[in-house]
Amino acid sequence: MPSEFALIDRYFRRPPRHAVLGVGDDAAIVRPSPGCELVISTDMLVAGTHFFADDDPEDLGWKTLAVNVSDIAAMGAQPRWAVIAAALPTANEDWLEKFSTGLFACADAFGIDIIGGDTTRGPRNFCVTIFGEVPLVGLQSQALLRSGAHLYEEIWVSGMPGRAALGLAHLQGRIALTEPALSVCLAALRRPQPRVELGLALRGIASAAIDVSDGLLADLGHLLEASCLAATLHLDRLPAPGLERDAYLSGGDDYELIFTSPPEHHAAILGLSERLDLPLTCIGKTEAGPAGKLTIFDAHGQPVEVTQRGYDHFA
Amino acid sequence: MPSEFALIDRYFRRPPRHAVLGVGDDAAIVRPSPGCELVISTDMLVAGTHFFADDDPEDLGWKTLAVNVSDIAAMGAQPRWAVIAAALPTANEDWLEKFSTGLFACADAFGIDIIGGDTTRGPRNFCVTIFGEVPLVGLQSQALLRSGAHLYEEIWVSGMPGRAALGLAHLQGRIALTEPALSVCLAALRRPQPRVELGLALRGIASAAIDVSDGLLADLGHLLEASCLAATLHLDRLPAPGLERDAYLSGGDDYELIFTSPPEHHAAILGLSERLDLPLTCIGKTEAGPAGKLTIFDAHGQPVEVTQRGYDHFA
Repeated sequence: MPSEFALIDRYFRRPPRHAVLGVGDDAAIVRPSPGCELVISTDMLVAGTHFFADDDPEDLGWKTLAVNVSDIAAMGAQPRWAVIAAALPTANEDWLEKFSTGLFACADAFGIDIIGGDTTRGPRNFCVTIFGEVPLVGLQSQALLRSGAHLYEEIWVSGMPGRAALGLAHLQGRIALTEPALSVCLAALRRPQPRVELGLALRGIASAAIDVSDGLLADLGHLLEASCLAATLHLDRLPAPGLERDAYLSGGDDYELIFTSPPEHHAAILGLSERLDLPLTCIGKTEAGPAGKLTIFDAHGQPVEVTQRGYDHFA
Repeated sequence: MPSEFALIDRYFRRPPRHAVLGVGDDAAIVRPSPGCELVISTDMLVAGTHFFADDDPEDLGWKTLAVNVSDIAAMGAQPRWAVIAAALPTANEDWLEKFSTGLFACADAFGIDIIGGDTTRGPRNFCVTIFGEVPLVGLQSQALLRSGAHLYEEIWVSGMPGRAALGLAHLQGRIALTEPALSVCLAALRRPQPRVELGLALRGIASAAIDVSDGLLADLGHLLEASCLAATLHLDRLPAPGLERDAYLSGGDDYELIFTSPPEHHAAILGLSERLDLPLTCIGKTEAGPAGKLTIFDAHGQPVEVTQRGYDHFA
């Protein structure tokens, strides 16, 4: 069996393009761009919780990095570098090669250097830490925080959250999708597309942003709590009927962005939607009220009860 | 059971001292010091491989961060920030509180801000990514790389590697230590002291450095391979007889530093040893020859065979 060092060399070492020193020393070295803040996020994916041991390794390699890229996108930052630590039960080289192919496909798609790695024996687990940059304007941060929303701003959602959850439900035999929806939902589940371009374009337009990893209602709740605001949503504005609507509101794992913005940017955001060829839907607005409180209205203007608020690993 | 978010809040969130934004958003934000390079390392610790489920959680919290701090020390960098991801089978609050106490004790000892966290359910696993800074002098990096050693430099080792391995052997019933050695070896195993001060002092003195995580011979081998050099060692220079000597050469998990330096710095290094109250032992020198080749001489000047070269997770 190849050694730990041979595995890192073979599957995780590539010459870095934007780093001083990549994989292979005690640490990697980068030179942050002058006048930028550094945005840092870490995410751990565990077999049985976030993926299954028999998932396609190339998809898994993509997704392992993509979910982290999404956190950087939600800050309005440019992803730059990432490190990956992996625990593996065995050193299956065929599996590793495919995983590495998917990982680097995502890295290449978003211009990210993989600058460090650690492999060890253990139950399958991947931990990525990712770094992005946001330019300062003077001493002012341009990063999009969860806590930046103001009163009476519009609440927007990118793409079609819920598709990943529908894809998973199909695989688990709980629903039966047919083509073309099936392919679209499985792609959302297996190859999520972090909204980096959108995040960058939202600097100066959005006041607050978060990505949808736990479910729209849950993640919007986090944003509102951080901003000390309540909100109203209108179900008839959602671009999704029936089952799709439930998934839109509660399905996690899509990595779309939720953001708030003053109403005067409404037209600019619709223009952005067209330019990026990405649906951007205004689903409600922020209100005064208890932090995190969501009031949801149906097509007749009646408040509705929505209980399923997304995924919490220890709830 | 408390939620994932409550767990992060309760045990991993503290107001950051040197960060713009700590735990609680999609990502943390830091402002790197102007004129510095950023040094980044990631390490994953897995139950059953790196620690045992019944290890003292406070010690484990310390060690989880300390082994990462050591990588930063080995680069001659100042540790600044860290993020931690944790997979846990259950949310045992008593255990988590103790783990967090040990983790923050280490963070405080080395002036590190814990700026991000992720908790998820799964087989016990901790992944820390750590960031340090090294000032540039002009455009010149001051970081201590593995690859920086030159021909005919002295090879130095800090402290007493092997103690952690002896402590572990005692716990496993393979040897029987008595006091005071027992306490010293168990402390080395449970509360390793990363050599941050030494690493910082070695900038401009050492040409190359690495920390002893896999074992002295193994890690010296990595340094020599990276520097394309061979080396000679002299067993009679080691400050350790018999069993201790074997542990000194092959025991991992001590987090001492190995470094090389031109002979003209010999006296300065002995002075440093006194100032830091830390043994610094010159055990050999770099030579021309096949990269990584170690020739070891006994007290009579005879070459000896040493086979056990440390720990490799997949060998």
